[in-house]
Amino acid sequence: MRFDLVVHNGTIVTVNAAFDLIPDGMIAIREGRLARIEARSPDLPLPPADALIDARGGIIMPGLVNTHTHLPMTLFRGLADDLPLSVWLDEHIFPAEGRHINPESVRWGALLACAEMALSGTTTCCDGYFYEDEVAEAVAGFGLRAVLGQGLVDFPAPGVPDPARNISTALAYAAKWQARSATICPSLFCHAPYTCSKATLQKAKAAADARGLLFQIHAAETRNEWDQIQAAHRKTPIQYLDQLGILNSRTLLVHCVWINAEDIETIAARGAKVSHNPGSNMKLAAGIAPIAALLEKEVTVGLGTDGCASNNNLDLFQEMDLAAKLHKADTLDPTVLNARTVLEMATIGGARALGLETAIGSLEIGKQADVIVIDTRRPHLVPLYHPASHLVYSANGADVKDVVVAGRILVKDRELTNLDLAELLAQVNRISRAIGT
Amino acid sequence: MRFDLVVHNGTIVTVNAAFDLIPDGMIAIREGRLARIEARSPDLPLPPADALIDARGGIIMPGLVNTHTHLPMTLFRGLADDLPLSVWLDEHIFPAEGRHINPESVRWGALLACAEMALSGTTTCCDGYFYEDEVAEAVAGFGLRAVLGQGLVDFPAPGVPDPARNISTALAYAAKWQARSATICPSLFCHAPYTCSKATLQKAKAAADARGLLFQIHAAETRNEWDQIQAAHRKTPIQYLDQLGILNSRTLLVHCVWINAEDIETIAARGAKVSHNPGSNMKLAAGIAPIAALLEKEVTVGLGTDGCASNNNLDLFQEMDLAAKLHKADTLDPTVLNARTVLEMATIGGARALGLETAIGSLEIGKQADVIVIDTRRPHLVPLYHPASHLVYSANGADVKDVVVAGRILVKDRELTNLDLAELLAQVNRISRAIGT
Repeated sequence: MRFDLVVHNGTIVTVNAAFDLIPDGMIAIREGRLARIEARSPDLPLPPADALIDARGGIIMPGLVNTHTHLPMTLFRGLADDLPLSVWLDEHIFPAEGRHINPESVRWGALLACAEMALSGTTTCCDGYFYEDEVAEAVAGFGLRAVLGQGLVDFPAPGVPDPARNISTALAYAAKWQARSATICPSLFCHAPYTCSKATLQKAKAAADARGLLFQIHAAETRNEWDQIQAAHRKTPIQYLDQLGILNSRTLLVHCVWINAEDIETIAARGAKVSHNPGSNMKLAAGIAPIAALLEKEVTVGLGTDGCASNNNLDLFQEMDLAAKLHKADTLDPTVLNARTVLEMATIGGARALGLETAIGSLEIGKQADVIVIDTRRPHLVPLYHPASHLVYSANGADVKDVVVAGRILVKDRELTNLDLAELLAQVNRISRAIGT
Repeated sequence: MRFDLVVHNGTIVTVNAAFDLIPDGMIAIREGRLARIEARSPDLPLPPADALIDARGGIIMPGLVNTHTHLPMTLFRGLADDLPLSVWLDEHIFPAEGRHINPESVRWGALLACAEMALSGTTTCCDGYFYEDEVAEAVAGFGLRAVLGQGLVDFPAPGVPDPARNISTALAYAAKWQARSATICPSLFCHAPYTCSKATLQKAKAAADARGLLFQIHAAETRNEWDQIQAAHRKTPIQYLDQLGILNSRTLLVHCVWINAEDIETIAARGAKVSHNPGSNMKLAAGIAPIAALLEKEVTVGLGTDGCASNNNLDLFQEMDLAAKLHKADTLDPTVLNARTVLEMATIGGARALGLETAIGSLEIGKQADVIVIDTRRPHLVPLYHPASHLVYSANGADVKDVVVAGRILVKDRELTNLDLAELLAQVNRISRAIGT
């Protein structure tokens, strides 16, 4: 029995239900799926395979799942920081989007994000932006797995000058991609309860449900949003969305910073999913989402970086460290969001948040071969007592040595296999010179 | 005029008082000091030099200053996480120290820390531990700059079985190192107001002042410490230390989480310095230090990682990101601790905290040549609008390409020049096998 790819000589962190660790582990991949996962003494011969990855004593684990991105916003990385939210948005980000977001810039920005994500161990992302068809072309061409949502707002937006066409544009995009790629799932992304009307929210959600698509929305991110929704509807953002019938198991609520105990009960009762973006929430001073309380009610929580204008990178290892530490400081309880919990949030939890848990998020036979290898031969990863602790508290994205998506090697020994990086960086620098002036 | 080393082809982030940036910059080093710092068109010839470092379009900046470490605790990295503080200390860290801390393990642990710090851009650290003479041997041999404090507690400690000899042991260590090395400054480190008696605190502080040594102490770290000091002395930890005459400009107060407005006034009035360790405070659930309020009163604040058992790495780039984000979330103000402020905390602020601001902390002519180069040709550092923003919010320690301390190259193209890394990791793994069982 010959395999397409064998990854060996590492400790496998399966992130299965038992959180099994397999020292001296080996995984064998055929037709893009995990065919064997087992302990393998280093002195035994390996099964025949077309390609080999030697983990060199490191960690073999599922690729990370980033549940919230705006990929093309890599173009605005570090353009404007440390500003009040309204100044940042109205004087910097919105004008830059108006002037510089077009199909070509979106494609290069998304490709830059793909390169950054792959090099830091993310194999699946969930995105929302404009010109999402271009994002999908870039991500599919690069080879990452993704849920990609066309953005909807009730005012003129890049690529959708007439807001009356926002839903039809999104549905045309979704129809195009729904049957086209095994690794791209289209999605609808209503920007927020305050930028989409009640009619848009309900129509988009019904259309998403009818097509089995994930419905994404920024919800309860800032105090200002909470005040606005309260003033207009006399409800919290979560109760407002629930009243509209928006919350179900195919709804991904992004942020959930300003939620109360009743909101948490509602989210749990509806089976809605939450994307937690600690770095962005902290940097924009939105606040601290009550993640420990959500986990206590068994709400599915995935981890996200948000766009590069508010983070300012896509390194999900750094986001794990932030999440694990932030909630300890916030609750004054060092036992909340322990390393295993956070590692699950960044893998199988993220997969559940996107409805992809039968395909990805853990290393189990039959699942998609989305696998990363961590090089542990660096001073900051020695000694190694507990792999989960290292992955959350010590490692960063630069420790990722190899990345495989659906059995295909995208990163080998820290280098991209599928892209001319110098050409990509030159194109992005060309675009950014116009943005920065 | 010939130089020992020229670093060129990068944007110089000087961190001088004007925070000058010099695109296409060049620095020239002679006898361990900065002799020239200037713009240099890439097509002009470079001055003659024995060695060259090409920054390849990246960032040239002062080495980072880590104001709080326990270097040998790299040996306990990830040994025990996510536990209540008393369980972590009493059942894991203290027993491990009792069994495994000896001169040999301290030396290998400190050397591992040096390797990790150098590879992530830290050129100066301020340490406190036991067997500090062994730490000093390791750090001096490696070539980093450091303030190294012998630890003092009023109970038997590693290397000091009789606490009656804690001060004499520390002073013998200090006398040995005070004239021995240009890059090592000895220091006294009283562990905390609750582990040192009033007499020990006052005697150690007087001895440090008489010798011009930095006096370090963990202060106001946890709520439990606050309660203990309140119960015993009816004062806050800071007021208690002030009453004992401990606070002056050569006192480094580490943590300062549980301080009130009066404490801040006292710290400012005495000119005492603060070491802020956001990662450790968060991970141990100590709380959030009021750093924005301290900065408002113009208190000197440096950044620290703390030991590897409570972080779990020594990456000061990650600590900058944490500091910048944490206080925005805590105060709900996105303008506090902006990128420049945090970068200053990690460089010139740290230098001031250690009393070394005339020697290090910024790139200015005549200062010590402690210089690092950041490789910006990676996807997560493109585009580049504002160098300070990138250094705080986008970079991590793995982006450090070259490291120079006192004119000597310690890291070249990401590799240590002065150490057999495989041998070091093998020695640490040998020691850690005993610790982990």
